[in-house]
Amino acid sequence: MISESAALRRRWYPVFLFFSVIVLFASCSVVYADDGHSLWLRYDLVSNKRLLQEYRGLIKSVDFEGNSPTIRAARKELKRGLDGLLGVTVPEVGSVGNDGVLLAGSYGSSPVFGQIGLKSDLIKVGDEGFVIRSSVFDGKKGIVITANKDIGVLYGVFEFLRLLQTNRDISHLDMVSAPRIKLRMLNHWDNLDGTRVYRGSSIWDWNRLPTHIRQRYIDYARANASIGINGTVLNNVNADPQIVTHDYLLKVAALADAFRPYGIRIFLSANFDSPMKLGGLKTADPFDPEVKEWWENKVKEIYSLIPDFGGFLVKANSEGEPGPADYGRTQADGANVLADAVKPYGGIVIWRAFVYAYNPKDRAREAYDIFKPLDGKFDSNVLVQVKNGPLDFQPREPFSPLFGAMTRTPVTMEVDIGQGALGGEVGLAYLAPMWRECLMSDTYAKGKGSTVAKVIDGSLFGYKMTGMAGVSNINDDSSWTGNIFGQANWYAFGRLAWDYDITSKQIADEWIRMTFSNDTSVIDPIEKIMMASRENVVNYRDPLGLNMLGGWSVYHGPWVDNSTHADWNSPYYHRADSVGIGFDRTRAGSDAVDQYHPPVADEFNSMKSCPEKYLLWFHHVPWNYRMKSGNTLWYELCYHYYEGVVGVEETEKIWDSLKGKIDDAEFNSVRMLLKMQHENAVSWRDGCVLYFQTFSRLPIPAGLPPPEHDLEYYETHNPR
Amino acid sequence: MISESAALRRRWYPVFLFFSVIVLFASCSVVYADDGHSLWLRYDLVSNKRLLQEYRGLIKSVDFEGNSPTIRAARKELKRGLDGLLGVTVPEVGSVGNDGVLLAGSYGSSPVFGQIGLKSDLIKVGDEGFVIRSSVFDGKKGIVITANKDIGVLYGVFEFLRLLQTNRDISHLDMVSAPRIKLRMLNHWDNLDGTRVYRGSSIWDWNRLPTHIRQRYIDYARANASIGINGTVLNNVNADPQIVTHDYLLKVAALADAFRPYGIRIFLSANFDSPMKLGGLKTADPFDPEVKEWWENKVKEIYSLIPDFGGFLVKANSEGEPGPADYGRTQADGANVLADAVKPYGGIVIWRAFVYAYNPKDRAREAYDIFKPLDGKFDSNVLVQVKNGPLDFQPREPFSPLFGAMTRTPVTMEVDIGQGALGGEVGLAYLAPMWRECLMSDTYAKGKGSTVAKVIDGSLFGYKMTGMAGVSNINDDSSWTGNIFGQANWYAFGRLAWDYDITSKQIADEWIRMTFSNDTSVIDPIEKIMMASRENVVNYRDPLGLNMLGGWSVYHGPWVDNSTHADWNSPYYHRADSVGIGFDRTRAGSDAVDQYHPPVADEFNSMKSCPEKYLLWFHHVPWNYRMKSGNTLWYELCYHYYEGVVGVEETEKIWDSLKGKIDDAEFNSVRMLLKMQHENAVSWRDGCVLYFQTFSRLPIPAGLPPPEHDLEYYETHNPR
Repeated sequence: MISESAALRRRWYPVFLFFSVIVLFASCSVVYADDGHSLWLRYDLVSNKRLLQEYRGLIKSVDFEGNSPTIRAARKELKRGLDGLLGVTVPEVGSVGNDGVLLAGSYGSSPVFGQIGLKSDLIKVGDEGFVIRSSVFDGKKGIVITANKDIGVLYGVFEFLRLLQTNRDISHLDMVSAPRIKLRMLNHWDNLDGTRVYRGSSIWDWNRLPTHIRQRYIDYARANASIGINGTVLNNVNADPQIVTHDYLLKVAALADAFRPYGIRIFLSANFDSPMKLGGLKTADPFDPEVKEWWENKVKEIYSLIPDFGGFLVKANSEGEPGPADYGRTQADGANVLADAVKPYGGIVIWRAFVYAYNPKDRAREAYDIFKPLDGKFDSNVLVQVKNGPLDFQPREPFSPLFGAMTRTPVTMEVDIGQGALGGEVGLAYLAPMWRECLMSDTYAKGKGSTVAKVIDGSLFGYKMTGMAGVSNINDDSSWTGNIFGQANWYAFGRLAWDYDITSKQIADEWIRMTFSNDTSVIDPIEKIMMASRENVVNYRDPLGLNMLGGWSVYHGPWVDNSTHADWNSPYYHRADSVGIGFDRTRAGSDAVDQYHPPVADEFNSMKSCPEKYLLWFHHVPWNYRMKSGNTLWYELCYHYYEGVVGVEETEKIWDSLKGKIDDAEFNSVRMLLKMQHENAVSWRDGCVLYFQTFSRLPIPAGLPPPEHDLEYYETHNPR
Repeated sequence: MISESAALRRRWYPVFLFFSVIVLFASCSVVYADDGHSLWLRYDLVSNKRLLQEYRGLIKSVDFEGNSPTIRAARKELKRGLDGLLGVTVPEVGSVGNDGVLLAGSYGSSPVFGQIGLKSDLIKVGDEGFVIRSSVFDGKKGIVITANKDIGVLYGVFEFLRLLQTNRDISHLDMVSAPRIKLRMLNHWDNLDGTRVYRGSSIWDWNRLPTHIRQRYIDYARANASIGINGTVLNNVNADPQIVTHDYLLKVAALADAFRPYGIRIFLSANFDSPMKLGGLKTADPFDPEVKEWWENKVKEIYSLIPDFGGFLVKANSEGEPGPADYGRTQADGANVLADAVKPYGGIVIWRAFVYAYNPKDRAREAYDIFKPLDGKFDSNVLVQVKNGPLDFQPREPFSPLFGAMTRTPVTMEVDIGQGALGGEVGLAYLAPMWRECLMSDTYAKGKGSTVAKVIDGSLFGYKMTGMAGVSNINDDSSWTGNIFGQANWYAFGRLAWDYDITSKQIADEWIRMTFSNDTSVIDPIEKIMMASRENVVNYRDPLGLNMLGGWSVYHGPWVDNSTHADWNSPYYHRADSVGIGFDRTRAGSDAVDQYHPPVADEFNSMKSCPEKYLLWFHHVPWNYRMKSGNTLWYELCYHYYEGVVGVEETEKIWDSLKGKIDDAEFNSVRMLLKMQHENAVSWRDGCVLYFQTFSRLPIPAGLPPPEHDLEYYETHNPR
């Protein structure tokens, strides 16, 4: 593990030079109608001529040492990147010849690395980190990219290319970088029939596997490696048992082979009842010897096909999935039977804490109430995967109290790249600020400064294993994510999992430069749009701590009332009545506040000290309660809803100003998506305000335009 | 209509010059891992330097006249094409300045066109044709692309770009081109939920329509216009009635707006029971005045949103779809109620002849028996769409006897671009030879020379409307068709619908040049592969006139026996028994032969004169029957099955020789697909031979390798 202080040395920050004059270099091929299929790995010719000359001068030859599959992938990527970015073929040489060599390889691959004094830095970076340095070796000036292992070299190559892509100064490089989190994973909620929980089709073409390896699989691995993602769960957590049949394992093995050079290990979501559904056993009770044996044999089979198989992800006793509770066993009992099976092979089990039974009192308490007592009862190779908030991927939730509560069981964080509650692919909502909001929250588990990030990176409680998982927004659309801004969230997830100290703005800046342009007249407006985007969604959907207004019905909105599950209903969560609105989770209510450590619990418990962004999460607040702004709650609520729509309108205006500055097809696509988002935002705002007004019986503040339709209209016209 | 003699003047054929020395021009952007998303419109820089200089010299400026949406699309395409192919920006000028101008526009858009003596040619080409000519105008040498209408100009631009893409000599152009068929349509078997009858997802994102117009829709329109396709049916013939609800019509209208500049009109598959399912009527009886009125109102609504709506495609009383027979009415009665409704707006109805009830005697007779008596009973704006063969898109069928039988009702031809019975997206099967086999078949309806093509183009019976429809293989894969060779079939369909006299080889040559390379060392082997490919499939699946071995079950093969529908079973079709194999459709059998005109009927009726490729289609032939080769039928059958597999093996060998000569990603993808096809071919061969052997009780000929598994294995291991 890398301690925080040893993480990144970024002497190149801030070196936003040379981009004031952008000359469209007379390229012989004009890119038309890019649909985003190249992601952030476009490698377009550096458009700043002066910088281009400088780069060409500093990179005159490449000496790449080693020949493993990972090194071959790194060398190929470097060539591809330099070919595109520099517009010339940089010759590959077998040794350091003259000034301007780029020397790359693992530390052990050439004695030259020993001359440069890299050892102390390399000790810090571990198995996956890397060093990039401007240096002199064999008497020649050059740049070195090196690492302890080949995968670090690959990561270093991607970092180096990123420096060029983002037009940084590379004349005096001195970077030492290592990931703060060990498992940086995507979770695909993809079904074996090609459908997904979210929109679009799965990229996994199970029918053609194992024979046909799509170019898209390779590009997927490249993109993930470029941002340090090193694990992937291929299938939906609502797991089809078929995934571990021999036929499917052959397919999985083919993907593992394709991903291996890129440092990506495969995990699978397992169905807890597999021993019954596949093995024909009468039970899946984790204490049954036959069950234990079935898992052992199955795992043996898996490792015979996939020697570096990562392990299992399991959703158990949650939303209809089978689990150990079906046999009177605990979640820990369930996890451990799988953990025992994979342990001999170095595998792990990631056990999801997203577990709840129907709880008329407070569903938000459930995960903590179930898992806190199990702390220490899990095998050493089990990680408990906790969603960022206590409920379920809402536009804003306070951090889950399980962060800070599990001192003997490593918890990993699960976030939703897929924007399930933030407009899906249609909504423009840059999520790095949301994820950092959670990561930077202070749990006070060991006093001030006990941030969620320090829980997650293992430093607070000394976890040996650490992880962060993002529910993937990747589908088979040629743009990968159906909205180019979805790519920014995939990118941001990887970057934050590597180093949560990179700010949201820095990540946005990188991504915009790599995706659109290094021209500030493009970067600045897009950055502005991105940085405001998530708060816009919060405002027009769930302001002031409201949440779960989506519901499970065809028609979304705060009115959703599904008689079969009270806790699948919006009213369960907003609790609007003639007195006020919000869920009383104080000590006078469900007492969920006391799942937090005292300073936090006290802050949340008081209506006065509770941050207003979480107010209705923790308090049932009277309509006429006076907010910090001086407005009543009702007015403040209305203002937030309206501000959300205004935010989207401003986004549209800013976006329109980019016409002609970026690719036309991308411009038009986002423009139309913003129009849809605007429609959705108005629909959320008007529906919610009208609905809550039936409780408050107060007028919409003067000056705000009244909703166009009546409540009934919004109840049957679906926003997203 | 263009009579055959007036069709194409192709003075540029054969001008396969200049491609002997291919120099990879030092392009500043290297294309990596192309996944086929650009289709045949790649516009890569002309790699032959001499030819490139010549082209640049002949195209020094562009004078594009007119400003309609279609002209703007044509101008944009020309610029895009020239930018890419010539690698320079050809200046647009407002008038003919110097030598080397490319003058484009409709005849009426500039007086300059009048100087060139184009009138007599333009009279021949009608509304959609065009003229491309090297000429002198305003005293300057140049090239003119003109037409009567703007759409002809667009078609001319695509043709001109194709000349450059395929490295033709453009120094003495004199082309006059017009389509032989009026409606050149794609039929999408796509459902509103995004699924398709064939593999993959629909490209229509109904959820985002009407607001979001994907770049893919525009590229779809461009690709279709480039090969002359001018109509599309968006939804599955098993039609969801929802497609004509107001909400969906708004979406359809948005697509129509996007396609209009490219000359593509939209048609919809209508559900015959829509008046009941949407309108709440108690019947959909075409004679009911309320039903009539419902359709009239619905059509009025459609045309108010889509003024150039093409009309309806209808599958009625077929495979569970509702239809007029449900009310005791004829197919003509059903078609006419819709035809009456669209007639005031210039709309048409395309009524599918793919109708059959359970017929224990011979399903192949059905379409003729039902439709022949209705000839002349359809309204003047009805076309009857007939599949190429009497059954259902088999690898080989004789032509449908309805071609040549309907003298007063225009029949259009429906072919399957989707390769439903030819391996789907996995199979490499170039279908132009199959379609031309049908088109060039002689019906003898008016004596020798009465080809199916002459029926279809209207010249034989004087049809006023003509059409050809291809069931689309387009899905949302980034490669469009999941296999780059699928693109060749889309391309070939459009080219043949424009002019069925272009040979399969010519079309293959064009497509290979536009898709892969103008290098003969690439063209020749790929052409060889393509030209053999369909016959390979016939051999390893359905040789000697066998057919319908696929069945409707999960497991394909000749053994399929589905008790609910005898005519959905393979044994119904192959009729193998201890005596022999094949369906007796002679005068001694079902007498389907007499649905053909006498010389054809006589030829098919006799086992001796019947072409062997159709032998088992028309005859039940003893296992020891002596074939023309001297082999017994049983041996011949076995040899064909084995030849099919050898053909695929040879394809693999030839393909392997292309490594390094074409894009790596494309090379690898096809290589893996061929491996799958090989596995499927072996599976078909071995399964069929073993199964038929249970009837023949004869040995597999010496020298042929015996099947690896027993029959039971093949019965449960699915080929495709």
